[in-house]
Amino acid sequence: MKAHTDYLWFETTNREEFIRITDEVAQFVYESGIQEGFVLVSAMHITAAVYVNDWESGLIKDIHRWLNNLAPRKDYEHHRTGEDNGEAHLKNLIMHHQVTVPITNGELDLGPWQQIFYAEFDGQRRKRVVLKALGI
Amino acid sequence: MKAHTDYLWFETTNREEFIRITDEVAQFVYESGIQEGFVLVSAMHITAAVYVNDWESGLIKDIHRWLNNLAPRKDYEHHRTGEDNGEAHLKNLIMHHQVTVPITNGELDLGPWQQIFYAEFDGQRRKRVVLKALGI
Amino acid sequence: MKAHTDYLWFETTNREEFIRITDEVAQFVYESGIQEGFVLVSAMHITAAVYVNDWESGLIKDIHRWLNNLAPRKDYEHHRTGEDNGEAHLKNLIMHHQVTVPITNGELDLGPWQQIFYAEFDGQRRKRVVLKALGI
Repeated sequence: MKAHTDYLWFETTNREEFIRITDEVAQFVYESGIQEGFVLVSAMHITAAVYVNDWESGLIKDIHRWLNNLAPRKDYEHHRTGEDNGEAHLKNLIMHHQVTVPITNGELDLGPWQQIFYAEFDGQRRKRVVLKALGI
Repeated sequence: MKAHTDYLWFETTNREEFIRITDEVAQFVYESGIQEGFVLVSAMHITAAVYVNDWESGLIKDIHRWLNNLAPRKDYEHHRTGEDNGEAHLKNLIMHHQVTVPITNGELDLGPWQQIFYAEFDGQRRKRVVLKALGI
Repeated sequence: MKAHTDYLWFETTNREEFIRITDEVAQFVYESGIQEGFVLVSAMHITAAVYVNDWESGLIKDIHRWLNNLAPRKDYEHHRTGEDNGEAHLKNLIMHHQVTVPITNGELDLGPWQQIFYAEFDGQRRKRVVLKALGI
């Protein structure tokens, strides 16, 4: 059995930004040499998410708007600590911070339209995603 | 260590349909011969989900209504591509597209009321779920 | 390859309660002897969740309020069975019932602010979380 670990770093220009990372995850799996197993793609921060969905710019705008509606920027209890990112924590919870992708025949076993995204909700500073593969 | 992979196919009659798949996943785990490990159950489409909850028809109606309220059918940016399924993408994101079930003593290690469901949000065509088990 | 399994039991005083379990999961990983792998932390009930976010009391209040807004206590179809916890099922679905944490060098590979929580939405009775680690 093999295990392989790496980290992707991000520092976005904007407070919110969705970044496609399918190619980076595929490259990581190739380097692992694992033929059959799982790769976990997991945000290491509590104001970012990792999700799988469509690489279509209209839909990406829809997701931003929809999240702003479900978790608006406003005054939260959390802001009494000096933070101003309460809504970013809630967006992390809706979207979930991680996905597990199966590895089959040495490749990501994704459906035809499935792309992996890093979703930043409180950026403009260095943040990380952990990649961990386990298998044979 | 063993890895085992299979795919479940669905073609629902209705646009939205929730289908219990616990028995199919249990059968897959039995065939894998794995005694201790994980089974990933993951939708391969971006307008469907896999979730674990109660097998109770009233609750299933409640979930449909609640999702229609959180992600209503309306005009989305995504529809400029010719699609009409923006709300189905958002429902995929709320519900998450995958679950991992532990395998203990060769069986699904679920709580007494936990059932695995495939949740279709844009059906009436062939779609897939990947099953992947890893363990000893 | 090693697999290790255990269960955490909870019986909360209140109907809703969020309980930090990072230390219990870290202790479980230490006992497993696994150096590289995954630990799955998964609620075995359909009215509870497991999530990763901040250990900050204001934010925890914000999450409770936000969930009450997205999934209010009201009359649900599910209540025709005699239950009164429809909203707790919906909260389970928003928050997701499980997380997978990577194990690196024998330790939980979490970001600096990431803490693991058990989120009870219908407590005051004994409920369980399964811990399952797989790796080398």
